Amino acid sequence: MHVLIIGAAGMVGRKLSGALVQAGRIGKADISRFTLADVIEPAKPVFSGPVETIASDLSAPGAAEKLVALRPDVIFHLAAIVSGEAEADFDKGYRINLDGTRLLLEAIRHEGMKAPYKPRLVFTSSIAVFGAPFPEAIGDEFLNAPLTSYGTQKAICELLINDYSRRGFLDGVGIRLPTIVIRPGKPNLAASGFFSNILREPLVGIEAVLPVDPDVRHWFASPRAAVGFLTRAAEMDTAPLGWRRTLSVPGLSATVGEEIEALRRVAGDKAVKLIKDVPDAKIRAMVAGWPRNFAAKRAEGLGFKAESNFDEIIRIHIEDELAGKIGG
Amino acid sequence: MHVLIIGAAGMVGRKLSGALVQAGRIGKADISRFTLADVIEPAKPVFSGPVETIASDLSAPGAAEKLVALRPDVIFHLAAIVSGEAEADFDKGYRINLDGTRLLLEAIRHEGMKAPYKPRLVFTSSIAVFGAPFPEAIGDEFLNAPLTSYGTQKAICELLINDYSRRGFLDGVGIRLPTIVIRPGKPNLAASGFFSNILREPLVGIEAVLPVDPDVRHWFASPRAAVGFLTRAAEMDTAPLGWRRTLSVPGLSATVGEEIEALRRVAGDKAVKLIKDVPDAKIRAMVAGWPRNFAAKRAEGLGFKAESNFDEIIRIHIEDELAGKIGG
Repeated sequence: MHVLIIGAAGMVGRKLSGALVQAGRIGKADISRFTLADVIEPAKPVFSGPVETIASDLSAPGAAEKLVALRPDVIFHLAAIVSGEAEADFDKGYRINLDGTRLLLEAIRHEGMKAPYKPRLVFTSSIAVFGAPFPEAIGDEFLNAPLTSYGTQKAICELLINDYSRRGFLDGVGIRLPTIVIRPGKPNLAASGFFSNILREPLVGIEAVLPVDPDVRHWFASPRAAVGFLTRAAEMDTAPLGWRRTLSVPGLSATVGEEIEALRRVAGDKAVKLIKDVPDAKIRAMVAGWPRNFAAKRAEGLGFKAESNFDEIIRIHIEDELAGKIGG
Repeated sequence: MHVLIIGAAGMVGRKLSGALVQAGRIGKADISRFTLADVIEPAKPVFSGPVETIASDLSAPGAAEKLVALRPDVIFHLAAIVSGEAEADFDKGYRINLDGTRLLLEAIRHEGMKAPYKPRLVFTSSIAVFGAPFPEAIGDEFLNAPLTSYGTQKAICELLINDYSRRGFLDGVGIRLPTIVIRPGKPNLAASGFFSNILREPLVGIEAVLPVDPDVRHWFASPRAAVGFLTRAAEMDTAPLGWRRTLSVPGLSATVGEEIEALRRVAGDKAVKLIKDVPDAKIRAMVAGWPRNFAAKRAEGLGFKAESNFDEIIRIHIEDELAGKIGG
C-alpha cells in the first residue's frame, strides 16, 4: 500500500507519518511506500521501503497532478492555511484551502479517467465549520454555519468530497478535528493557539498569555487522538457513511478553568502562576462563535476515540514531547 | 435603484422581471433602471426607464466584471444549470453553478475595492441542498447533505454568500426555492419536471407522463410565490439573518396523489385520465432522496409566504398562463 501525506511537514502530518512509519500498516494492509509532500520539503523518516519527500504547493498548476500520477492507495490531505491566516488573507485562504483541495480532487478524477483509480482520501476538516448559535451539544445533523473564512473553506471541501465520493471518483472520509491540545513547538497563527500555550509553556517554566475568561468552554483532543482519527478514517469501511462522508469525532468538552486545574494537579501552583491574563477582544469575539460540545454519535459508533479529561491530555504531552519530565 | 437580473431569460427570471417592471419598485425604493442578462439575450420589457438586455455567460472570463461594473444596487442571481443537466455533465455543472457564482462574488468584491460598493445579492438556492434521510419536517438548523451535484453546487454557493456577506463585500440573501409548479412552457432537463407536467399538459388536453407513485410527497410553491420570495429577499432588512443568509422558505408539502385530486376538482376526470403511469427507475431513485416537508420558521417570521393547497397553485397557473381558461 502506497501512502501519500499532503501537509506532511505540519504538526499533525509529522505525528501521522511518524506513527504510520512505526506501525508499517493501516488496518490489515502493509504499507510498502510513502510519499510525503508539503510546501516545504518534509523530513525523511527512516522506513524499510521507499520514502519520497516532495516540496509541493498544491495550489500551483500541475502540482496535484504530479502527486496523484503516483497513484497512491491512500491520500491524507492535511494541508491548509490556519484560521487566523485565512481570516487575515482572504485570497490566500481561498487559494490554498479551497482551490488547492479542489485541484487535488480534480487530479484524482482525471487520473481515474486514464485507468480505474479510486483512492481512499482522508481529509482534515475542522469544528470551525460550525458557528454559533448552537445547541448544548452539536449533533451529527446540525448545520454547517461557519463564522470564519477558514471554516467556510473546510465546509465547502466537505461538500465536494461528498459529491466526488458519491460520483465514484474517490472514496473520501473527512474528519472534523477538535482543537488539538497540547500542540508541541512554537505558537502558530491559529487563533485557538492559546488553549495549548497555557499548558505547554508553563510545563517547561515559561510564561503564557490567556486572552479569554476561564469559563470559556471548548472542544479538545490530543495530537495522539488526532493520529488515531486519521488512521481510523484510512482503514474503516466507508459504506456505513453513505454520502455523508465527514464525521464530527469524539473529543473532550472542557473549560479553560478545567484546563488550568488539570495543570495545577500535574505541575502545581508554580506552573499555574505562569499564566498571565491578557484579555484580547478580537480573540474573545472569535472564540464566542466556536463550538463548545458535541454529541459525536456516528463517529463513536464507528470506533473513533478521544481523551475523557485534561489530565490525560497533559500526560500524553509529557510522554510524547517531554520524555516524561516536566519543569523549567 | 438599478436592478440587475442574471438568468433573466429563464422561467423565474422572466416572471420576476415582469413583476418588477410592473411594480416599478422594490419595497419603498423606486426602480430607475434594469439590466437583464442571460446566456441568450433576454426579451426587453416595456419600462419607463432604461432597460439593457445582455447576452452573457457568467462563467466566461470578464463577464461578471462587466455586469458588476454597472454597479447595480440589487443583483438577482438566478442563472444555473438544472439538476438533471448538472448530474449528466459534471464539468458544466461545476463551471456554471459554482465557478460562475464565484466569479460574480469576486467581481463584486473587486468592484468594492475600487470604490465602496455593497449591493444586495439575491441568490436562488434550492431544496436540493438537502438529502435523505431527513426528519418529518426539515428545520432551519438541519444539515445540508445534497445527493446531487446540483445540490452540492448550490450548498457551496450558500456558504460563499454567507462568508462574503460576513466579510462585508456584499449583502446576500439566499432563497431555497421549493419545486416550482406549475412551470409554464415546455419541459426542461430538471428531473423534477413531471410534477408540473402532470398538471400543465392535462389542463390543455395533452397527455403527460408520471414516472413515480402517487404517494410520493414533495415540497412546492407557485411561480408567483417564487417571485414573492425573491422580491421579499431584495427588500428585507438582512440584520435578523446574522451570517446565516440562506432561508428555507414556506411551501406546500403534498403528494402526487393530492396534486392529481386537485386537478380532478378543477378540470375533471377527463384531465386526470391524460396522466399516464410510466415508471422510471432513475427518476424514482432521485426523488427518493428529495425533501418532502419543511418547518420554515425563520422565513415565516420574516414575512415569506406561499400557497397552502394545490387548488390554489392550479388556479394561479390558469390565471397567469391560460388567461383564466382550461381545456384542450
